Amino acid sequence: MTTGTIFGVGLGPGAQDLMSVRADRLIRQASHVAYFRKKGRTGHARSIVEGMIGPVAVELPMEYPVTTEIPFDDPRYNALLSAFYESSVAQLIEIARAGHDVVVLCEGDPFFYGSFMHLYTRLRDAVPVNVVPGITGMSAAWTATGQPVTWGDDVMTVAMGTLPETTLARKIAETDALVVMKIGRNLAKVRRALASAGREHEAWLIEYAAMSRERVIPFSEAGDTAPYFSILLIHGNGRRP
Amino acid sequence: MTTGTIFGVGLGPGAQDLMSVRADRLIRQASHVAYFRKKGRTGHARSIVEGMIGPVAVELPMEYPVTTEIPFDDPRYNALLSAFYESSVAQLIEIARAGHDVVVLCEGDPFFYGSFMHLYTRLRDAVPVNVVPGITGMSAAWTATGQPVTWGDDVMTVAMGTLPETTLARKIAETDALVVMKIGRNLAKVRRALASAGREHEAWLIEYAAMSRERVIPFSEAGDTAPYFSILLIHGNGRRP
Repeated sequence: MTTGTIFGVGLGPGAQDLMSVRADRLIRQASHVAYFRKKGRTGHARSIVEGMIGPVAVELPMEYPVTTEIPFDDPRYNALLSAFYESSVAQLIEIARAGHDVVVLCEGDPFFYGSFMHLYTRLRDAVPVNVVPGITGMSAAWTATGQPVTWGDDVMTVAMGTLPETTLARKIAETDALVVMKIGRNLAKVRRALASAGREHEAWLIEYAAMSRERVIPFSEAGDTAPYFSILLIHGNGRRP
Repeated sequence: MTTGTIFGVGLGPGAQDLMSVRADRLIRQASHVAYFRKKGRTGHARSIVEGMIGPVAVELPMEYPVTTEIPFDDPRYNALLSAFYESSVAQLIEIARAGHDVVVLCEGDPFFYGSFMHLYTRLRDAVPVNVVPGITGMSAAWTATGQPVTWGDDVMTVAMGTLPETTLARKIAETDALVVMKIGRNLAKVRRALASAGREHEAWLIEYAAMSRERVIPFSEAGDTAPYFSILLIHGNGRRP
């Protein structure tokens, strides 16, 4: 019997027809489909592929442990997540060793931030793993603004809203094009960082890029929080003939 | 009669099944397909879609003017390219006003560097334009390395090998994850910049990512030049449970 392969499949930004042809085929033909979700939720990755999974496919939801009561920098936080990834990986390896392929649904691109990589590093020495890249959420975001993000020799920086304010401000000041993700509850801090870099009037906020609720607004019109699927964007302004 | 729409369609990194389902449908159903190429060549974008274009579709190759004799910073260089884009746009507008949609083939993602944006800014006030994002070449490059590119709060910087050496060195020193494109004849300069940032042993060179000639080597083993489709990558090393 041949060991199955674990496929980490990038779903792209959220519209079903923005996943790759390869991803589309793998998902429709899959005998086993795994995905992360919060307890009691459908899960965003699962909702993107609604209607695509075959009627006899086995679904393997991997439910995040509840961490809301534990501070982010508490060692228990990492220990809890680590144990969760270990048990998810044990289940995937068992299925692969029984000869089945498993498609793991990954929002965006599997190797660009995201959660799949925590499975990947634990899987790759045990069973065959194959990664299918996807269109990133940031690509959908700049497409939604109707303006190219980078021209000529523009430098582009991608930073997380979870960074310290002074780090963010420096990154914002030193780049041409900018993408900030993980904004959510960090919005006020990101706004102060933009202001100290003197770039608050260049920034756009894109919510739910490529999804039905897509919305593009000047960042100055944003409220005090933003949805999880929000991206801040500053367009580059480089050489153009 | 309704004016046609110009679709700027991202083809992704080069493998036919890594384009989006939306791109695949638009290309197979297109009545008019336009693409850039050098005079006398097939053109890389056109070669990616080989076998997908319908038998009665009209093909519109847009041939770059020959600029090899003109220095990059000579005003004549920009003037020549600008005239080329203007005449390409005039042709596209004429077809759209005759009621036809046109699919413009774009390598990678249309709004992330690339040439389509030079058409886009000239088209968008004249006729309807619709942009379909694609998987970037850099996504294919980090997928090819078999290692995630960004973790946790990693900062990622994208820079062009055409930048001055000191600028490159500073960008390389200040980031976690790094992508350098447009390496080609800038390879020696990029190597010096890596060395002065002290990061030459962290870098990978990915040639022809997602294509049949794909090759991943430590940057230290690279020669004096690299093919056009080359990407330098340094992986981030951020928080992981």
